[in-house]
Amino acid sequence: MDGRFIPDIVVGRLPVYLRALQHMQHEGRQVTSSQELGERLGISAAQIRKDLSQFGEFGKQGTGYQIEYLVNQIREILRVNQVWEIAVVGAGDIGSAVARYGGFANRGFAVRMIFDINPEVIGKQIGSFTVQDSAKMVEAIRLAGIQIAMITTPANQAQEVANKLVEAGIKAILNYAPITLNVPPEVHVQYIDPVIHLQRMTYYLE
Amino acid sequence: MDGRFIPDIVVGRLPVYLRALQHMQHEGRQVTSSQELGERLGISAAQIRKDLSQFGEFGKQGTGYQIEYLVNQIREILRVNQVWEIAVVGAGDIGSAVARYGGFANRGFAVRMIFDINPEVIGKQIGSFTVQDSAKMVEAIRLAGIQIAMITTPANQAQEVANKLVEAGIKAILNYAPITLNVPPEVHVQYIDPVIHLQRMTYYLE
Repeated sequence: MDGRFIPDIVVGRLPVYLRALQHMQHEGRQVTSSQELGERLGISAAQIRKDLSQFGEFGKQGTGYQIEYLVNQIREILRVNQVWEIAVVGAGDIGSAVARYGGFANRGFAVRMIFDINPEVIGKQIGSFTVQDSAKMVEAIRLAGIQIAMITTPANQAQEVANKLVEAGIKAILNYAPITLNVPPEVHVQYIDPVIHLQRMTYYLE
Repeated sequence: MDGRFIPDIVVGRLPVYLRALQHMQHEGRQVTSSQELGERLGISAAQIRKDLSQFGEFGKQGTGYQIEYLVNQIREILRVNQVWEIAVVGAGDIGSAVARYGGFANRGFAVRMIFDINPEVIGKQIGSFTVQDSAKMVEAIRLAGIQIAMITTPANQAQEVANKLVEAGIKAILNYAPITLNVPPEVHVQYIDPVIHLQRMTYYLE
């Protein structure tokens, strides 16, 4: 884009729009509207139009959006019109599930390597991957030029792993360990902790 | 509380505060401050004080917060000073990982049952659970009075599962399937889709 600052909250909604548009594409659809998209997503049509308008002109008043065009544009904006390789650290249940997950294909990502610290797990086969020794992690990630990692270790190992990942040149971390990480400001971190989501809902339950 | 409306974004930060406070507790700590908590979480001290003040008076200027007291208060606010039982639907890799996940204990949740539609999976043992036939899901959930479910099916089954869960009386859904669900307004939904988080970060990468 033209270097304008766009709030992260807006950036964060684009992947949700993209996912819905790709579902529509999968259904064989060619055109949609902000109204329809809004109904699917529980977001107002005005919000969707406003968000998209921050990145360019993607539809005409009254004729809606060409789905394929909009999908391609959003993929370009989010830089997922390419495949990003991922290093997974922690080969337990969650790490194994993530390494075998079929949902990354066509959405811009591919797991490339998986590491663990446990000698009994190193060398084990998970899907098409052989679990590597995390002692060799920094070198392997650097050599492969990988920029994205997922941490799927227990909480008490996660910060140390994060430090090594930063050393290895990782620029984005998806952290499944239930702990907040301290990393340099140029490294992006997102969190997946099911309990955080659950507790946000129990507040409203009786 | 006194029934005042508190924005969901504020409610959503409480579990993150709680998690950090419980880590401190685990470290044997007894007192903390909004400054220290803010540094751990990358949130300003002022934001933390403002958020907490919406729920009551938990600390005194200059003396900080008593960690144990604040933990207990937040647990009560989030209603996780009890154990909520969870039904998991979908016994694939993610569902199995979630059913075996050790991180729910002491945070207010316990998986109680797991269902699948696949005859080859029904009856299988996952940790301490026997996978049940999802045809019997509505009855089993109703009978147990369970209010929270996790959907860990493929995307194309998730909406149908959600409909059944609503029928069964479920009030909160944590959805791992990469699709937005349509449910009645009184049913809460939270989403976990690693690709959404990853795409939010690649926007910023080079």
